[in-house]
Amino acid sequence: MVWDAWGIPSGHAPLPDRIRTLVAQVFGVSGEPVARRDEGDVPLRDSMLTAAQVAELSAVVGADHVSARHRDRLLHAGGKSTPDLLRRRAGGPQDAPDAVVFPADHDEVLAVLSRCAELGLAVVPFGGGTSVVGGVAPEGGRFDSVVALDLRRLDTLREVDPVSGTATLGAGLTGPRAEELLAGHGLSLGHFPQSFEFASIGGFAATRSSGQASAGYGRFDDMIQRLRIATPSGTLDLGRAPASAAGPDLRELFAGSEGTLGVITEVTLRVHPVPETVAYHAWSFPDFATGAAALRAVVQSGAAPTVLRLSDEAETGLNLARSGDVGGSPVAGCLAITTFEGSAAHVDARNAEASALLAAAGGAALGDRPAREWERGRFSAPYLRDALLDIGILCETLETATSWSNLPELKAAVTAALTDSLTGQGTPALVMCHISHTYPTGASLYFTVVAKQLDDPIDQWLRAKRAAGDAIAAAAGTITHHHAVGEDHRPWMPAEIGELGTRVLRAVKDAVDPAGILNPGKLIP
Amino acid sequence: MVWDAWGIPSGHAPLPDRIRTLVAQVFGVSGEPVARRDEGDVPLRDSMLTAAQVAELSAVVGADHVSARHRDRLLHAGGKSTPDLLRRRAGGPQDAPDAVVFPADHDEVLAVLSRCAELGLAVVPFGGGTSVVGGVAPEGGRFDSVVALDLRRLDTLREVDPVSGTATLGAGLTGPRAEELLAGHGLSLGHFPQSFEFASIGGFAATRSSGQASAGYGRFDDMIQRLRIATPSGTLDLGRAPASAAGPDLRELFAGSEGTLGVITEVTLRVHPVPETVAYHAWSFPDFATGAAALRAVVQSGAAPTVLRLSDEAETGLNLARSGDVGGSPVAGCLAITTFEGSAAHVDARNAEASALLAAAGGAALGDRPAREWERGRFSAPYLRDALLDIGILCETLETATSWSNLPELKAAVTAALTDSLTGQGTPALVMCHISHTYPTGASLYFTVVAKQLDDPIDQWLRAKRAAGDAIAAAAGTITHHHAVGEDHRPWMPAEIGELGTRVLRAVKDAVDPAGILNPGKLIP
Repeated sequence: MVWDAWGIPSGHAPLPDRIRTLVAQVFGVSGEPVARRDEGDVPLRDSMLTAAQVAELSAVVGADHVSARHRDRLLHAGGKSTPDLLRRRAGGPQDAPDAVVFPADHDEVLAVLSRCAELGLAVVPFGGGTSVVGGVAPEGGRFDSVVALDLRRLDTLREVDPVSGTATLGAGLTGPRAEELLAGHGLSLGHFPQSFEFASIGGFAATRSSGQASAGYGRFDDMIQRLRIATPSGTLDLGRAPASAAGPDLRELFAGSEGTLGVITEVTLRVHPVPETVAYHAWSFPDFATGAAALRAVVQSGAAPTVLRLSDEAETGLNLARSGDVGGSPVAGCLAITTFEGSAAHVDARNAEASALLAAAGGAALGDRPAREWERGRFSAPYLRDALLDIGILCETLETATSWSNLPELKAAVTAALTDSLTGQGTPALVMCHISHTYPTGASLYFTVVAKQLDDPIDQWLRAKRAAGDAIAAAAGTITHHHAVGEDHRPWMPAEIGELGTRVLRAVKDAVDPAGILNPGKLIP
Repeated sequence: MVWDAWGIPSGHAPLPDRIRTLVAQVFGVSGEPVARRDEGDVPLRDSMLTAAQVAELSAVVGADHVSARHRDRLLHAGGKSTPDLLRRRAGGPQDAPDAVVFPADHDEVLAVLSRCAELGLAVVPFGGGTSVVGGVAPEGGRFDSVVALDLRRLDTLREVDPVSGTATLGAGLTGPRAEELLAGHGLSLGHFPQSFEFASIGGFAATRSSGQASAGYGRFDDMIQRLRIATPSGTLDLGRAPASAAGPDLRELFAGSEGTLGVITEVTLRVHPVPETVAYHAWSFPDFATGAAALRAVVQSGAAPTVLRLSDEAETGLNLARSGDVGGSPVAGCLAITTFEGSAAHVDARNAEASALLAAAGGAALGDRPAREWERGRFSAPYLRDALLDIGILCETLETATSWSNLPELKAAVTAALTDSLTGQGTPALVMCHISHTYPTGASLYFTVVAKQLDDPIDQWLRAKRAAGDAIAAAAGTITHHHAVGEDHRPWMPAEIGELGTRVLRAVKDAVDPAGILNPGKLIP
């Protein structure tokens, strides 16, 4: 990815006229983008790594695979939250790791961790670099130097078991590359988060990622059969069966450990045959509460679409503005989307059951087109954010989850917190929301916030974010459904797991990483 | 339950003639049952608890709720494995806890743990007492005295959320009582392990129980939304949303912790409306491999029956002998059972999809009767074991799980290990097997072993069990799919989680139970 924005250059495009006009009107900005810096011109803080330390690391992975070059350091300077991107655009020297290490395999990761523990170097495991919560910030904690441990060379499909429907993938494989390798065996993983194009298998596991097809294929943590983990104290190979009663499930300690307890080097995952058929359906509901009740009926019945989502009135309205550009037709009220994958008979049966429930709950069928349009554009929102940032608009997302009965209260509380904070600071705010992950007992809420950038847009957002996080904690939501904790959500971890839960995490940390080199400042309060 | 056998007296019945004739022929026993001791006549080891210690515990829970009476101690003397039952029938003084404490609620559990840590008393949390792996053995470890902490008074349905489909249940509720309370709200949990009639909600969670309807409603750990846990270091309240990316899932550390890390006092569970319809179907397959492939096709398609199981040739043959007594008709080859629950439309659609797959895979439909017979008798096998033990027959079960591709090898390895061990010791052995829990990536294998009791039947079984456990570990199965670890499976835990995994568990144990009072000798190697 480029250093100061999402994705690759070819993904970047000027803001569609319709959106530019809309936001210029609402927020009173000119709509003219500011120029961004060339990456070669960006000053970095000096690397503190000594030549001796570089030599030690080179002895483990080879001199070609340790880099303190400007470009490598810049491209590992952190993740892609809006504050991250605003900091990159802010001028002045950028923070960055002191060096980047590129190990070849599990054993090299293990050796690097061991060496870094001896040398007193902090280690930030680095997959796709798509974190939006400060999960890969080059934070050294109590150490003088920090190295980014880039896992891109762990990029093999090591084993496929088509009978059991499992595949063992290297942690450094990106989403598209993993799908490409699996497709060679007629298989698919079906994990499509918005970060899909750049994020890595190891990162998905380390952050409990959840993809847009989670209704059908589950969250990434649901797919995990086995984990191989390198820690400063040795290797863990966890998971011996599809299910087990052999004590606590330690995989669930390392899934979501965000590089603080070890480095996931290999993941064995549930996969499925590339589906024979995919069916697309869109629905309109008069309001969000009606739509949410309809989604609930579907997921509680076990009708199991592959994708099941619902946009609120504000988001449906913006989709209208966006889809206008690609020839879509207006959708009133709240837009819901279902897709179904599998054999033709399976798809037909599921769609019949789900459609009957959605119609009975007040949905009006819209045909397949809005669903296909959603799928076509589903990875492009982060590019749109960059185009908005370029014209002085603040744009960021945050997400939570709760039970179905608590969903209306949580949505109202977060919307109010964001709106009040931003309007109080002096800008109108557009707060949109959708449900994209459903469970029998509840659902996620994903908020997109658009406002005008004020004098200090980073501080502006952090205030709004703090208000939203406090509202989530007060309204009994989880601080994150699929973005993970990183640095940014750490203040709310005590609300999630309590004081004793925190002590449990610290005890595990001390057992596997006694020197405390792994991803300082993330996750663990 | 009675002290020396499964269940309640009214469940006990003489061995059906057909079975008695069969086993008398195969194993050369007379078929005449031996008399068992009256519980009042059974000597127990002396209680080591001092009057001062009893007074301290009474100060917490009230004098009426601390008992060192013979009967209370006898009824908490351990679980219901075959070695447990053989030890009870063996004569001589029985091991037992020094006292039994019956706390009223979470706060009393917390206070009891705190007091026991100060007094240096080991604590064995006790639910239904149905463990078949030594999970509730009155083991004091390095402590002189051990108290059983009986949770039966934590027996309320504290909260129902019908919109979200969740209910908060006290840890001491038995399966039937939980279903009864939920039925008052039109709801059901759908967790029906063979121990259902006696086991408790807290025990299900602490052992990662899995019920016969797991294909439809999931394992018990899948149903857990929130856990409330009392530890010597304080309270944990875990679980804030249906799913979360807020770090490691600590619920998964305490699910399956078997009373070694804390006492689960309250569980919030996913529940569902009492189903409108239940459909029953039975199938015959020519052999186990064909049947297993058929089950795999069903579960991998997502057709999701509520119950999905397959008996091998030997077990189908014995079912034939048993079902003869209840008017069933012979089933050739391997018997498979499916049930479907939900709305009529849902049941029809699922059954149509599953039936087409089972028929295409070589299954012959047998109608509903064998499935209904299976359901009628599904909790009675442990009573049959008692009747067999009474006539000098050894009968025990063990279970494992693995991937679909490894299933044939694991089944053959365990069958050979059991058969070789028992025949080597001098008795023919009947080893039967079924698949009762299926996943997209694999399945469980549940073995029932019948042999003649030799001179030292406990040692005889432990040898066979050791051979089977070693075979499971060597063939990459899990040492337990749903019976848990207890004392009996502890030797194989290093094979499950490795040396570093063991250190992680110990670190967690030290954080929550620094004095080490909780369930000594169980789970953690």
